[in-house]
Amino acid sequence: MHPDWIVEHLRVRIDRKSAETLSRQLYRLLREAIRSAQLRSGTALPATRQLASALALGRNTVLAAYDQLLAEGYLDSKQGSGTFVSSIFEHHRAQQTPPRAHASLSRRGEALAAVSKLPVGLHGAFAPGMPEIRQFPHELWQRLQQQHARSSPPDWWHYQQEGGLRQLREAIADYAQLSRSVRCGADQVLVLQGAQQAMELTARLLADQGDTAWMEDPGYSGAQAAFMAAGMDITPVSVDEQGLNPQTAPAGSQPRLIYITPSHQYPSGVVMTLERRLQLLQLAEEKDCWIMEDDYDSEFRYDTQPLASLQGLASSERVIYLGTFSKVMYPALRLAYLIVPEALVDSFRSAYARLYREGGYALQSALAAFMEQGHFARHIRRMRELYRIRQQLLRHTLRQQLGDSLPLSSGEAGMHLVAKLPAHIDDDSLSRHAAEHGLWLRPLSRHYLGDHSQPGLVLGYAGVDDADIPESSRKLARLLERHQP
Amino acid sequence: MHPDWIVEHLRVRIDRKSAETLSRQLYRLLREAIRSAQLRSGTALPATRQLASALALGRNTVLAAYDQLLAEGYLDSKQGSGTFVSSIFEHHRAQQTPPRAHASLSRRGEALAAVSKLPVGLHGAFAPGMPEIRQFPHELWQRLQQQHARSSPPDWWHYQQEGGLRQLREAIADYAQLSRSVRCGADQVLVLQGAQQAMELTARLLADQGDTAWMEDPGYSGAQAAFMAAGMDITPVSVDEQGLNPQTAPAGSQPRLIYITPSHQYPSGVVMTLERRLQLLQLAEEKDCWIMEDDYDSEFRYDTQPLASLQGLASSERVIYLGTFSKVMYPALRLAYLIVPEALVDSFRSAYARLYREGGYALQSALAAFMEQGHFARHIRRMRELYRIRQQLLRHTLRQQLGDSLPLSSGEAGMHLVAKLPAHIDDDSLSRHAAEHGLWLRPLSRHYLGDHSQPGLVLGYAGVDDADIPESSRKLARLLERHQP
Repeated sequence: MHPDWIVEHLRVRIDRKSAETLSRQLYRLLREAIRSAQLRSGTALPATRQLASALALGRNTVLAAYDQLLAEGYLDSKQGSGTFVSSIFEHHRAQQTPPRAHASLSRRGEALAAVSKLPVGLHGAFAPGMPEIRQFPHELWQRLQQQHARSSPPDWWHYQQEGGLRQLREAIADYAQLSRSVRCGADQVLVLQGAQQAMELTARLLADQGDTAWMEDPGYSGAQAAFMAAGMDITPVSVDEQGLNPQTAPAGSQPRLIYITPSHQYPSGVVMTLERRLQLLQLAEEKDCWIMEDDYDSEFRYDTQPLASLQGLASSERVIYLGTFSKVMYPALRLAYLIVPEALVDSFRSAYARLYREGGYALQSALAAFMEQGHFARHIRRMRELYRIRQQLLRHTLRQQLGDSLPLSSGEAGMHLVAKLPAHIDDDSLSRHAAEHGLWLRPLSRHYLGDHSQPGLVLGYAGVDDADIPESSRKLARLLERHQP
Repeated sequence: MHPDWIVEHLRVRIDRKSAETLSRQLYRLLREAIRSAQLRSGTALPATRQLASALALGRNTVLAAYDQLLAEGYLDSKQGSGTFVSSIFEHHRAQQTPPRAHASLSRRGEALAAVSKLPVGLHGAFAPGMPEIRQFPHELWQRLQQQHARSSPPDWWHYQQEGGLRQLREAIADYAQLSRSVRCGADQVLVLQGAQQAMELTARLLADQGDTAWMEDPGYSGAQAAFMAAGMDITPVSVDEQGLNPQTAPAGSQPRLIYITPSHQYPSGVVMTLERRLQLLQLAEEKDCWIMEDDYDSEFRYDTQPLASLQGLASSERVIYLGTFSKVMYPALRLAYLIVPEALVDSFRSAYARLYREGGYALQSALAAFMEQGHFARHIRRMRELYRIRQQLLRHTLRQQLGDSLPLSSGEAGMHLVAKLPAHIDDDSLSRHAAEHGLWLRPLSRHYLGDHSQPGLVLGYAGVDDADIPESSRKLARLLERHQP
């Protein structure tokens, strides 16, 4: 490009009304011209004074653009003889291999991306795991967050390695001791950004690539994804009316980690019996393995108090206890906690700080106050009463509509019911069909990890407005009738 | 225990002034007596009416405690003949294996826990990577957070799968395009909880266990920890004055991922030349591998505008661009972003939602407003001027104190300088010694991943008050003099 043409090229493209500075525009236009070979290697650029006057720009504007292009290697400056387009691009273009069709995910990436996708907008009837957000004390909670954000000491803005804010760890330890009979001090508590992170951290610290995780079958696919991502092999172990039954595990299977939901098995709702709990603790000693107790929704028992944790039974130190605030506060809060044996505290803290970094202390401080001031317990009590009524309402209206043809899981607990369907019904296609009618039905068969699977529906009721339950139940009944072969 | 003794055992232990409810106390005391075999299998418990009257408690109090113990399996109830201690514990005690000495971390866990621990309380002279928190517009930022928390629509409280809040992704895309010449639309942006998470997600989606990551040597140990945790093998590739030099990689080494900090190499400060950038892009095509561009602090260039990203050069789609808000806002914010090729957007979004879950939308919304309203750019401008002055001040006072005996890295950029030390000085012991004097000196040798290492110090200045820099420099000079052999 002849120097005159450079000036012309720039003149027609510079936009004096743009939000982009003139200097930035000049830089960008020259860079593009060099990259596209409109300005070829070795071309002499106009002197800055000359270009500035030709384009009616300040000389500093042109200088800044040239400096940036020099710094980035697009231009070379030769002492005394001016500024030239560098030869780098020319040289590179001559050698270039054409890009391949497309670069791809790894095998692990393909597997992770394929694990059943979460549908978006998961609330309303009958999305499982969704608490009642509308009755959360939003104003109070925001006021607390504001107070605690305002009083942030400087330490809260930096990196830390404390396993979470001390006040929150203390509030959690008190709560877990009192309401779940977990044996722990505040030092054993580690605050994390959600249960998924907690599962992965645990799997990576306690298990190696290729080690085996026993999982309840049917079970929680979020845990499956986390253990897979940590390189573990999953061995499904079936759940009977006492909970996970180790007798049905493949002979000789040597687990490194046993993942269980003993207070309220997900999704079946079974409570693990005391006998089975003791058996599992014994087995963990014999097999030298770890137990991860996921106590995701045990706040919500409607017949008794929340059941004592398995962790609290153990005389040994083989249980990692996991609790979450997603169900008792709200999912987008992204706060969960681990309670780990004392011997593991240092390793968990330092690996957490290293792999994930701590943060969000103002939020943690607000949550500690929310707990200490009794709002947390009060909200749980209110939601317990609400969810109890919603469960009854769902049972009642489904029985009215469908009689005994849709058997529901028993148990006065939790945030969902399981409805078993006859073997010939494809719950996956039913669920897709229902979604078109604005009804979220999570297929039970998707929760099976092994060969056997049972069709059914996981029906969340906790986040469904009382007024919606009858109408949505009717909708479900109509869908089921139409889905009879 | 005779029934009378049960009553006596409970009477002396029940505390009517305790915050714990009487029913809960009763439950706990009976449970402990059963677990410790003071109450043996088969023992008949007093009838509820009888126990209530003997302890002067309400009958419902006793009923609730018995119900809980029945639900948890500690008691059996035989129709017509009363309530008995279950035989489960007795049975279990007879079989029990004594606990092993201690259960342990996995090999991977040991390695992760051992990766050099971050010291706690990392601020003040000369902690690297720490921005100036005191001059952050805290009040404004809190006001924005409050506004956006108040106006939260219900969707923000639930699980999502959008790659982060749309408004924030748009603000980030605008910013990255304009200030880094990244080529992207808002859909390609994925908002995450910190750079560590971003590195791990990328490594797991794009690489398999045992695949090789090329890392700059010296380099960033946080990235090393993330790639190790994702099961990758690290191959250190040395950095020369043009940046990572692929010619020095072991012959035949086949990377799956090349991790680079081209705008401002960490820790050396080298800017990768245009020639080297093009060479690496070419190499990624030839070797069918991915490039991860970590642009952690390129906002802070003092001679030119921030340098254009390597991502913006690529005609192929092999670059994953990583940016963080830890340096330009504050570390505890825990927000970072990836900009990924369009072909990968769906996989990254669904794997992210699956493995980590999204959340914190009110915060994301506040940050989007902070950016849109110009506060972000203004804060960066102010900090750029401040850090430039602090860098000059640090150079100046160290030269005054130590003359040419402490050669400092060149480059008008970033938040730290590197000081090389003579080969006979042990920077690790110097650093430990300095910590006792309240001076944070990160040893350069710790950043080397391969066999060769160079002693030195990574001196952060961005977060150090101007007034502290001269005094801390004098302290450093005295320490160095005493450390001469």
